[in-house]
Amino acid sequence: MPASPIRKLVPYSEDAKKKGIKVYHLNIGQPDIETPRQILDAVRHADFKVLEYSHSAGNESYRKKLVEYYKRVGIDVSYDQIIITTGGSEAILFGMMACLDAGDEIIIPEPFYANYNGFAVEAGVTVKPITSSIETGFALPPIEDFEKAITPKTKAIVLCNPNNPTGYLYSSAEMEILKQIVLKHNLYLFADEAYREFCYSGVHTSAMHLTGIDDNVILMDTISKRYSACGGRIGAFVTKNKKVLDTVMKFAQARLSPPSYAQILGEAAVDLPANYFDTTKAEYKKRRDTIVKRLNAMPGVFCPNPGGAFYAMAKLPVDDADEFCQWLLDSFSYKKQTVMLAPASGFYSTLGLGKDEVRLAYVLNTDAINSAMDCLEKALEEYASRSQFL
Amino acid sequence: MPASPIRKLVPYSEDAKKKGIKVYHLNIGQPDIETPRQILDAVRHADFKVLEYSHSAGNESYRKKLVEYYKRVGIDVSYDQIIITTGGSEAILFGMMACLDAGDEIIIPEPFYANYNGFAVEAGVTVKPITSSIETGFALPPIEDFEKAITPKTKAIVLCNPNNPTGYLYSSAEMEILKQIVLKHNLYLFADEAYREFCYSGVHTSAMHLTGIDDNVILMDTISKRYSACGGRIGAFVTKNKKVLDTVMKFAQARLSPPSYAQILGEAAVDLPANYFDTTKAEYKKRRDTIVKRLNAMPGVFCPNPGGAFYAMAKLPVDDADEFCQWLLDSFSYKKQTVMLAPASGFYSTLGLGKDEVRLAYVLNTDAINSAMDCLEKALEEYASRSQFL
Repeated sequence: MPASPIRKLVPYSEDAKKKGIKVYHLNIGQPDIETPRQILDAVRHADFKVLEYSHSAGNESYRKKLVEYYKRVGIDVSYDQIIITTGGSEAILFGMMACLDAGDEIIIPEPFYANYNGFAVEAGVTVKPITSSIETGFALPPIEDFEKAITPKTKAIVLCNPNNPTGYLYSSAEMEILKQIVLKHNLYLFADEAYREFCYSGVHTSAMHLTGIDDNVILMDTISKRYSACGGRIGAFVTKNKKVLDTVMKFAQARLSPPSYAQILGEAAVDLPANYFDTTKAEYKKRRDTIVKRLNAMPGVFCPNPGGAFYAMAKLPVDDADEFCQWLLDSFSYKKQTVMLAPASGFYSTLGLGKDEVRLAYVLNTDAINSAMDCLEKALEEYASRSQFL
Repeated sequence: MPASPIRKLVPYSEDAKKKGIKVYHLNIGQPDIETPRQILDAVRHADFKVLEYSHSAGNESYRKKLVEYYKRVGIDVSYDQIIITTGGSEAILFGMMACLDAGDEIIIPEPFYANYNGFAVEAGVTVKPITSSIETGFALPPIEDFEKAITPKTKAIVLCNPNNPTGYLYSSAEMEILKQIVLKHNLYLFADEAYREFCYSGVHTSAMHLTGIDDNVILMDTISKRYSACGGRIGAFVTKNKKVLDTVMKFAQARLSPPSYAQILGEAAVDLPANYFDTTKAEYKKRRDTIVKRLNAMPGVFCPNPGGAFYAMAKLPVDDADEFCQWLLDSFSYKKQTVMLAPASGFYSTLGLGKDEVRLAYVLNTDAINSAMDCLEKALEEYASRSQFL
């Protein structure tokens, strides 16, 4: 089982904090956006005497409410095509466990969300990466790369859209290409759309918008980022494929039920005012613009402009971003502050790729982002001069 | 992946309810005991603005608090030997994933908690049952049965104490026997102690009380039953084995964090008044006495007196308890009421065993239990006379 590249530096950041250094966390997708008060209040005012198990598929009332939400984003599903999961994480795990056998292969454009690897290991599945590159802003790799990677054991393609870690927003043309591949080879399309509501350039094309591949599409969703409710651990596994739903229900029953509290919160979230996402999206866009501008202004740094999510990938003038990110925590500080980044190597499956890249989650306000960028700028200078003497 | 025998009858009970029939749920360990108000209030009054991910191992403050709880029950662990899990379910899954390789074998006295099967399938592990019998009240099978079942692939023994589904409370002598087996063959002892606080006859011997097998013992715990907080989905994986802890942390990091809300509840629960368990235990004991008495008073029914947990196993005068339990829901009612039981066959791994046995969870108050027993009594009569005409 691989260690999470996002979390493996945690002990170093804990040590830095113990030394009195403030750490700007750009390493993890934990937004500082306040969870809407209305939905926190829904939990506060929930009236029950026993904190019971819910239905293994989640509360029926919540699933029915989610149908309304999906309708608003052009996704037409019924409540019995939704299984509430413990975070998006469990939806991904369920998909891999239910749709694939040990030894099967899945294709994922890299760099990709590192925990796909972990869940693949748990399911005994082999990840076959096809590489997207920072030079093209991480666009979908050409169709030939998919064709080359497909073997008789290939069962699914995983697509995170908008993408974590790259922030890339796949166009409807790219989605149509994927559809053709999926149809031709009879594959599942695992669509991780955790960041659906955060698109700054262009519109979101859900895998569920594609026609004629109802049995192939598995939507893996979560409320974590949508409503800044990561700790709730509520997601959803959505598909029109009845056989897959039946199998996933067995996994859902084995773990009994998803958490009850945050289902209340998720249900209330569907009733948030229509402009809720406008406000949060404007805030994230401002942060994106800030961080991308600051990064590209640093000598030797390149950061393509991400179209969605709240991540940016940047190429840094360092040999080994893993070492640099650890050094930021254990050897560097500027005005008693430092910054925690996620080394990109952990997001690539192909060994040796991404060694000079990092992922930055712009989950802090622009003041904090500017302070973090001040740290990074100083750090890169200091790191370069330090290297000369090694 | 096997379907949960506890939950597979759910559609039939939903249909019965739609027909206006009241269903007494003795099929699932969902207590009607109220979740203590103090701990629900701890969540209501929790003051935060962002529902954040917690540490992957759970909040440090909660883990430190749990150390106090464990000390009270004679278990001496430090907070960094505890990883908070999403229910006891995830602790079991983590144990199987982290300690075993695909193809390894685990020994479990049957009948056993059916979801062990599901988690074993997820981990690619083979369950080797050794049979305990209703005639002996489900005591630990003789040591020779363990020795016969052990192969070079055997890596762990799973023991649920007090037992679900049998209610059996293992004696300290039996625990010492297990210790000898574990030491002799260098096995893990997976100890599911979800029902630790509910012992009516005799005292609880935790696997963590055994000396000299620190590296072998994995404690799988949960607050679900202890505080009637099943929907919280908070459990714990506890071991002194550093290597196992490190591996489990990777699985914990892959799924990011356990639910935040119920960690607040769990932390508050450790501060409940010392007599909290006395009250709930007295209530459960009264229910146990009621249900066991009622069952044994029915012609052809035998129910050994369970020493702990809140389950009783009963032998019924029916050929096929699966059919009978479905019939109770889809064809029977008495005063517009019926009862939902868990057929025992799903708790046995050996095919054909337990066909005339059911598990009853005494999670309802004595009035409800008596009404449910009235239903069962009538049902057995009607079922017997019906059978004559088939």
